Amino acid sequence: MSRTCLSVVLAAGEGTRMKSRRTKVLHAVAGRPLVAHVLASSAEAGADAVALVVGRDADAVSALGRGAAETARCFEQTERLGTAHAVLAARDAIAEGYDDVLVLFGDTPLLSAETLRRARIQLADGAAVCVVGFEAADPAGYGRLLMDGAQLAAIREDKDATPDERRVRLCNSGVMALDGRHALALLDLVGNENAKGEFYLTDVVEIARSEGLGVRVVLADEVETLGVNTRADLARVEQLWQERRRAEMMAAGVTLVAPQTVFFSADTRIEADVVVEPNVVFGPGVSIGTGTVVHAFSHVEGATIGTDVSIGPFARLRPGTEIEAKARVGNFVETKNTKLAAGAKVNHLTYLGDASVGPRSNIGAGTITCNYDGHNKFRTAIGADAFVGSNSSLVAPIVIGDGAYVGSGSVVTEDVPDEALAIGRARQVTKPGRGAEINARNAARKSGRA
Amino acid sequence: MSRTCLSVVLAAGEGTRMKSRRTKVLHAVAGRPLVAHVLASSAEAGADAVALVVGRDADAVSALGRGAAETARCFEQTERLGTAHAVLAARDAIAEGYDDVLVLFGDTPLLSAETLRRARIQLADGAAVCVVGFEAADPAGYGRLLMDGAQLAAIREDKDATPDERRVRLCNSGVMALDGRHALALLDLVGNENAKGEFYLTDVVEIARSEGLGVRVVLADEVETLGVNTRADLARVEQLWQERRRAEMMAAGVTLVAPQTVFFSADTRIEADVVVEPNVVFGPGVSIGTGTVVHAFSHVEGATIGTDVSIGPFARLRPGTEIEAKARVGNFVETKNTKLAAGAKVNHLTYLGDASVGPRSNIGAGTITCNYDGHNKFRTAIGADAFVGSNSSLVAPIVIGDGAYVGSGSVVTEDVPDEALAIGRARQVTKPGRGAEINARNAARKSGRA
Amino acid sequence: MSRTCLSVVLAAGEGTRMKSRRTKVLHAVAGRPLVAHVLASSAEAGADAVALVVGRDADAVSALGRGAAETARCFEQTERLGTAHAVLAARDAIAEGYDDVLVLFGDTPLLSAETLRRARIQLADGAAVCVVGFEAADPAGYGRLLMDGAQLAAIREDKDATPDERRVRLCNSGVMALDGRHALALLDLVGNENAKGEFYLTDVVEIARSEGLGVRVVLADEVETLGVNTRADLARVEQLWQERRRAEMMAAGVTLVAPQTVFFSADTRIEADVVVEPNVVFGPGVSIGTGTVVHAFSHVEGATIGTDVSIGPFARLRPGTEIEAKARVGNFVETKNTKLAAGAKVNHLTYLGDASVGPRSNIGAGTITCNYDGHNKFRTAIGADAFVGSNSSLVAPIVIGDGAYVGSGSVVTEDVPDEALAIGRARQVTKPGRGAEINARNAARKSGRA
Repeated sequence: MSRTCLSVVLAAGEGTRMKSRRTKVLHAVAGRPLVAHVLASSAEAGADAVALVVGRDADAVSALGRGAAETARCFEQTERLGTAHAVLAARDAIAEGYDDVLVLFGDTPLLSAETLRRARIQLADGAAVCVVGFEAADPAGYGRLLMDGAQLAAIREDKDATPDERRVRLCNSGVMALDGRHALALLDLVGNENAKGEFYLTDVVEIARSEGLGVRVVLADEVETLGVNTRADLARVEQLWQERRRAEMMAAGVTLVAPQTVFFSADTRIEADVVVEPNVVFGPGVSIGTGTVVHAFSHVEGATIGTDVSIGPFARLRPGTEIEAKARVGNFVETKNTKLAAGAKVNHLTYLGDASVGPRSNIGAGTITCNYDGHNKFRTAIGADAFVGSNSSLVAPIVIGDGAYVGSGSVVTEDVPDEALAIGRARQVTKPGRGAEINARNAARKSGRA
Repeated sequence: MSRTCLSVVLAAGEGTRMKSRRTKVLHAVAGRPLVAHVLASSAEAGADAVALVVGRDADAVSALGRGAAETARCFEQTERLGTAHAVLAARDAIAEGYDDVLVLFGDTPLLSAETLRRARIQLADGAAVCVVGFEAADPAGYGRLLMDGAQLAAIREDKDATPDERRVRLCNSGVMALDGRHALALLDLVGNENAKGEFYLTDVVEIARSEGLGVRVVLADEVETLGVNTRADLARVEQLWQERRRAEMMAAGVTLVAPQTVFFSADTRIEADVVVEPNVVFGPGVSIGTGTVVHAFSHVEGATIGTDVSIGPFARLRPGTEIEAKARVGNFVETKNTKLAAGAKVNHLTYLGDASVGPRSNIGAGTITCNYDGHNKFRTAIGADAFVGSNSSLVAPIVIGDGAYVGSGSVVTEDVPDEALAIGRARQVTKPGRGAEINARNAARKSGRA
Repeated sequence: MSRTCLSVVLAAGEGTRMKSRRTKVLHAVAGRPLVAHVLASSAEAGADAVALVVGRDADAVSALGRGAAETARCFEQTERLGTAHAVLAARDAIAEGYDDVLVLFGDTPLLSAETLRRARIQLADGAAVCVVGFEAADPAGYGRLLMDGAQLAAIREDKDATPDERRVRLCNSGVMALDGRHALALLDLVGNENAKGEFYLTDVVEIARSEGLGVRVVLADEVETLGVNTRADLARVEQLWQERRRAEMMAAGVTLVAPQTVFFSADTRIEADVVVEPNVVFGPGVSIGTGTVVHAFSHVEGATIGTDVSIGPFARLRPGTEIEAKARVGNFVETKNTKLAAGAKVNHLTYLGDASVGPRSNIGAGTITCNYDGHNKFRTAIGADAFVGSNSSLVAPIVIGDGAYVGSGSVVTEDVPDEALAIGRARQVTKPGRGAEINARNAARKSGRA
C-alpha cells in the first residue's frame, strides 16, 4: 500500500477496575503488554508512525511504544474530555499529513491487522471515514451502526436508540480510520453539547456525512473488539488468544495432546510433527524444530531447539538456550545461556548456566555449573564426547576437553585436557559398627528431647 | 445479632456411592473436609454452638468438629429413621434453649453464611420456621415449595406433586432455621405414617402452619445447595468453589493468567497486583504481598510471602516458609520451616529445611541443608550478605556468619564466622590420557556384555 | 461366542490433513497409536485374526499390528479405489472362511468392543450384513441409514438424499460386520459406476438385500464413531477418551480433585480411595493401591505403587519403579528401575536409577545414584534401616548394608557393611576474614568489567 499511515493509539484510560498500581495497557496477554499487541497489529497493517496518547505511567507506556516503533511519539492527555479530545492530543502528529489516520485503543489486543488493512482499503477507495463494526451476539449496551445503503448514516448510543434501532445487531467497535486530508477538520467540528459535556469521536460520522463525505463500515469478528477493563476480562482475552493460537498450531501440524493446558507466547514458532504434551508453558523467544517432543510440565523461554530433541518432563529452559538435533534435556534440569550440541544428554537434576556442551557428551545427574561468584558470571566449556560424572561441581571459568572424563562427585576447579581424567573427591573411610552407634545415639537424643 | 444460635449439623450419611473407607463428610473440597466448610459458614453466621450428628467415623468427625468449634458436641445417630429423627439425636442440645436452631447438612460445603444470616433474620422477625429454598434450573426430583402469599404452605415431594405443582421451580434445599422456643415441640409432632416409615423434617412446615405459626422462605443460589454424593459431585463442587474464589481474586486485583489452572485453599490470602501464572496450587496457610509473581508450576503451602517476591517456576514452598520483600525462590527449590530475609536469592535445585537466610545472601545452585540425622532435625542459620557456593552441603546444626563465603562443592560441618571463607572439598587430580582409557574400557565392557 | 472372527482394519488412509511425516493411524491417543485402540477393541470383541490393510509407513503399522496380535497379517493397498477395494486387499484372509468378518477403520479409536459384540450377535442371529449406525446430533454430511422395518434398506449419501431422507438422523459409521459365507461374494459384486469411479463398501447393503439376505443395524454412541483427520480431531478424541476414563475412575472410588487436569493411559489401574491431586500425568504401565495420594505435578510411568504411599508433588517415576506400602517419594525426585521397600523415604531432589532401597531406609536430600559410566548401567543396593546422608553420591555398583550410615556430602565408592559408617568428604578449612576479601575482589572485578 503506497498510502502513508499514522496510528493514534489511545492508551490513557485509568483502568480503575483493574485495581492495579500499573496502568491498564501495561498488563499482559500472551506475555506481552496489551498496547504492544495493538502496536504490532498497527505495524503489520502498514502504519508508518505511531502517536501514543498516554496518561498514568506515561513514561513506561512511552518507553514501550518507542521499543515497538522508533517512530512512536507520545502525547500526554491531561484532561479527560472524551475520545475525540483524546485523539486531538496527537494533533501535531495528525497535522503532518498522513494519507490514513487509524484511531486504535490500547486495551483491545485481539484486533487483527487484517481488519485494519480492510479499513485502509476503504479510505483508498474514497471514503473519508471508515468505522470498524461487528455483529454482536448480544448488542445491548453497544452503539449501533445505522446504515444508509453502503454508507454509515450514524452511530446511535444504546440509551438513545429507538426500539427498532435497538434490534440492530451491527455495533461500533470504536476503532476508526480517517482520511488524513479531512481528519483534523472533522475532529475540530466535534462539539460537547451533550449530557456529559464530552467530545465524542463517534460524532465524526454524522459530521462527515453532513459535509457530503463517504463513511463506510468494515466488519471485524466480535472477539477482535473485546476491550480489557477488569482482570477477568484480561483472563478471558488471554484464553481467547491462546485458543486461537492453539488451533493455528494444530492446523500447521503440531500435536497438542491437551491443547487447553499449553500456553504460547506471541512469538512462539513450532514446526510440524512436534509433539507437545500436557502442561507446557512457552515464554517469549522460542523456536522448535520438527520431530521434537516437549514432555509434560516443561517451561521453555528464549530457547532455540533443533530437530528430534527431547525436552522434559519437568525441564526449565531459560533465555539463551540453544539445543541442537537429537540432544536430550531431562527432568529437573535448568539451562540458561547454554548451548547443547547435537546428541548431548543432560538428563537429571542439573543446572547448566553460561555453558556449552559438545556433541554426544553426557552430563551426569546432579551436575552443577558453579557460574556465579556473587558478582560475576563465568563460562563452562565442555568438549565433544566428554563424560561428566554425576553430582559433579564444575567451578567456572573452566574448560573440559574432548573425550575427557570427570569422576562422579568431583569438584572440578582446573581445566581438564582432552582425553584426561579429572577426579576431585575425598577418599572414603568406612568404620565398622559406627553406623549403628550413631543411629542409637541420634535416637536417644530424640527421645531425650521428647 | 443478639439472638443465641445452635447449629445442628447432620453428618451421619453413609455415603456409599463414594465407595470409600472414609465417611462422606470427611472428604475434602479446597483442602478442607466438607463438614468443615459447613461449620465455617455456621460460625460466620453467628452460631454460638454446634451439635454434630454423626454415624460412621464418629471419632474423626467429632474431632474435626471440636477442632472447628470448642463448643461442638457430637451425637451419634445409631438408627436411620429420617431427617427429623436425625435432628432429634441432638435433643439435649436443642433443649438448652437457643433462640435460633439451624439445621444444616454436612455434605453441602457451598452454603453461604449470608444465606444463613438471612434465614436467622426471618426468625428474629417473627417466623417460627424459615426454609432455605432455591430456584432450580431443572426442578425435577426436588421437593417444591408451595407458597401461600409470603408464607410457605407446604413442601411437596416431586412424586406427590400435581402437574401444576410440578411446574413450580422454587425448591427445597433441606436447610431450615427453627425458632428455639418451638423447635422441639414441632420436631416431636413429626410422625412416620408414610411409605418408608420415616420421620421427615419437611413435615415441620405443615405442622407449624397448622399451629398458626409463621413459616417463611429465603432464597439461596442453586449452587449453594449442591450436596456431595459421589466423587464426581465432589469434583464438581471443588470446581464451583474454585471458580467462585478465582472470580473473587480477580475482582480484588489479582492477575490469574489462566484462572482455570490455579487452585486455592479456603484461607489463601493474596493482595492486589500479584501475578499468578498458569498451573499453581495453593495449599492451606498462604498469604502473599503485592507485586509478587508466582511463576508457573509452583506449589505453595503454609507460606507467608512478602511484597515483590519472585516464586518459581517449579518452586515448592512447604509449611513454615517466610519470605521477605524482593527475595527470590527459583526452580526445583524446596523450602520448609525456613525464613528468607529481604533480597535473599535461592534460585536453583536447592533444599532449605529448618533454615534462616539473612538479607541479600545468595544460596548457590544445588545447595542442600543436611537438617536430619534420621531422628532429629537441626537448624541452619545463614547471616546477611553471605555467599554459599553451588552444590554445597550444610550439615546442621550450623551457623554461617554475615558476609561469609562458602566455596562451591563444600561440605560444611563447622560454623563459619562472619566474613570468613570456608572450603571443604578435595583437591582435584588430573591424569592425562586416563579419560580415554576409562572410556575405552567401559565401552569394551559394554560390548562384552552384549 | 463360538463363531470365528476376522477383523479387517483399514489403515491405509493418507491423512494429509495431519500434515505429518507419519501416517495417521500411528498418531497416539492416551499414549497408544490410534490403530492399536481399534486392535484392542477388536480383540476384546473376540476377533481371532486381524488383517491390516496398510499404505504409508506400512512397516511401522505392520509391526504394531503384529505386536498387538500374533495372528495379524498385513496387506498393502497400492491403489486407492474405494473402501470395498481396500477391504478386498485382504481377500486372502477373508477367503480362509471365518464365520464373521468385521470391517474396521484404523482412525476411530473410541469404537467400543461392546458395539462390535452386538454387531456379531446380529450375524449369529442370521443377518448377512450388520452396519454400525449412530444417531447424529447434526446428520448433515453423513450417509443416512434408510430402514425397511427391522432391515436396513440402503445407505444414502448426503448429496444424493431427498429432503425427507435428509431429515433422517440415523447415520452410517462405516463399520460393518459381514457373514463370512457371503463376504467375498458380496464384495466382488460391488461396482464402480459412479461419479468418482470408486468401489464403495456401502453398496454391499443393497446388493445383499437384492440377494434376499438380511441386513441389520446396531447403534453406537456418536462419540464412538469419531474419526481422526486433523490434529484438532486428535486432541478432541484424546479429550473425550480422558473424560470417559476420568468418570470411570471417579465412579470406582478414586478422588480426582480436578479431573480435567489428570491424564490417564489406556492401562492405568487405580484402586478406590486413592487421591489424585491436580496436574498429574500417567504414562503406560501404572497401578496404584488404595490409600495412596498422588500429589500435584507428578509424572508416573511404568510404576507399581502399593497402598498408603505418598508420591510428589513434583515426582517423576519412570519405568521399572516399584514402591511398597507407606513409602514416600517427594519433590524433584526421579526413580527409574528402582524398588523402594515398605516405609522407605526419598523426599527431596534425588535420582535413584537401577537401585533398591530396603524397608524404612531414609535417603537424604540431593542423593544421586551414579549408575552410568557412559556405556554401562550398574546397580545400587541399599539395605533396611539405612541412612544415606544428604547430597551423597553413590557410585554403582555398590552395596550399602542394613543399618548402615552414610555421612552427608559423601562420595561412596566402596561397599558399606551392615551397621557401618561410611564417610567420604574433605575436611573443612576455615579462613578468618578471607570471605570478605574474596567478596571485595569479586565486586571489584565486576565493576572493572562494567
